[in-house]
Amino acid sequence: MADVRYLGQSESAALDDELMGPCGFCLEQLMELAGLSVAQAVQDLSQQSSMQIVVLCGPGNNGGDGLVAARHLFHFGHDVTVVYPKVGKKEWYSSLVTQLKESNIPVEESLPSSLASADVIIDALFGFSFSGAVRPPYDAILGELRRIQTSSGQPKKPTIVAVDAPSGWDVEKGPQGNGDAVIPDVLVSLTAPKKCAEHFYGRHYLGGRFVPSSIQRKYRLELPAYPGASQCVELSTGKKGA
Amino acid sequence: MADVRYLGQSESAALDDELMGPCGFCLEQLMELAGLSVAQAVQDLSQQSSMQIVVLCGPGNNGGDGLVAARHLFHFGHDVTVVYPKVGKKEWYSSLVTQLKESNIPVEESLPSSLASADVIIDALFGFSFSGAVRPPYDAILGELRRIQTSSGQPKKPTIVAVDAPSGWDVEKGPQGNGDAVIPDVLVSLTAPKKCAEHFYGRHYLGGRFVPSSIQRKYRLELPAYPGASQCVELSTGKKGA
Repeated sequence: MADVRYLGQSESAALDDELMGPCGFCLEQLMELAGLSVAQAVQDLSQQSSMQIVVLCGPGNNGGDGLVAARHLFHFGHDVTVVYPKVGKKEWYSSLVTQLKESNIPVEESLPSSLASADVIIDALFGFSFSGAVRPPYDAILGELRRIQTSSGQPKKPTIVAVDAPSGWDVEKGPQGNGDAVIPDVLVSLTAPKKCAEHFYGRHYLGGRFVPSSIQRKYRLELPAYPGASQCVELSTGKKGA
Repeated sequence: MADVRYLGQSESAALDDELMGPCGFCLEQLMELAGLSVAQAVQDLSQQSSMQIVVLCGPGNNGGDGLVAARHLFHFGHDVTVVYPKVGKKEWYSSLVTQLKESNIPVEESLPSSLASADVIIDALFGFSFSGAVRPPYDAILGELRRIQTSSGQPKKPTIVAVDAPSGWDVEKGPQGNGDAVIPDVLVSLTAPKKCAEHFYGRHYLGGRFVPSSIQRKYRLELPAYPGASQCVELSTGKKGA
């Protein structure tokens, strides 16, 4: 079987439009499945029954995936805090926040002081539609992640899990220039990996087990077999293993 | 821990209204999670990698859960046929059919001639809002299920899996009077079991791992612990085991 194909930025947007247009899917539905697959990948990382998890959510669909993942991780028994500096414009994002609050899951506007002692930090700030520079307040959040990642003398660092595309990376070219990109430990690609994943060498999962046959054929996705009833599958590590 | 509580008909409707009202959930989202949990319960029944599965879908939300389950079971690798005699009135049901057709999953108006040789038949005809008599064409469909179930000389009968409430049963009192009710082999209750499940003695799953803490408290649900990242949990067999 051919390797899974990595998608460019405009191709990813076109695929999404087709899913939610002629294929009959809706945003709320696909975001639910995407967020669930992120949660299942995080669950797969550890046998620890109650992890401290901080979910960093951006203002767009990547952040929405994070809000959904946070809710499922709470139901899986973890201690979850959501950081959501700006509620996105779509009304659905407010509903996703309501759903969290109904289970008393904290939703904060700024980083908790305990960030560095979390077991897992999920980066759901920006996804495949990101371009340009990271603006406030997200630049400071990424700066803090980098500080945690590069600090010495910390016995155990949080595992950083990026959703679909590591935030701040060029979606096609990967981490850019100045050496201050956050390099996640784990990447959960959604639907199909984006080209930037060719520059990623950690544990790589694929989620979004909903792509209809018509779209798999049209985009020549060559998706791997998912195990059992799982909503995610671990790929061989990055392009390194290809 | 107290046993899981069985809900009456009006209480089930009120709970659903709260989920999709003040709790911020939407139909498309909850139907997706409900259908996925049905698919995961069916997957749990057998190690067989490709089962022949027929999903009987009614005109309401129970049928919608069936349409979603059918799609996930296709993605799990099974050979799925949907029987959908009448497309429900909500526009979303047509979208769910479109989603099936994009993966070439057959959606038929009447029963396939091969029904009796299926490995699994999913009864997603009527759910917790059902009352009164079963009308055409659903009466004939239930008649055929009963015939398959009671016929002698068949080496291996299909496993009948009911979604939330076995069709034709009184949602609170269970199978009614005339002895011609279909008795499913497996029941997948959604959100919380309905009172009719007290009259069910087969394998009993619970799905719908999305009930927020506020609703669990308000309705004193005493939900069991779900394993790992699973969207369903097997309960001790019916009230028999309680």
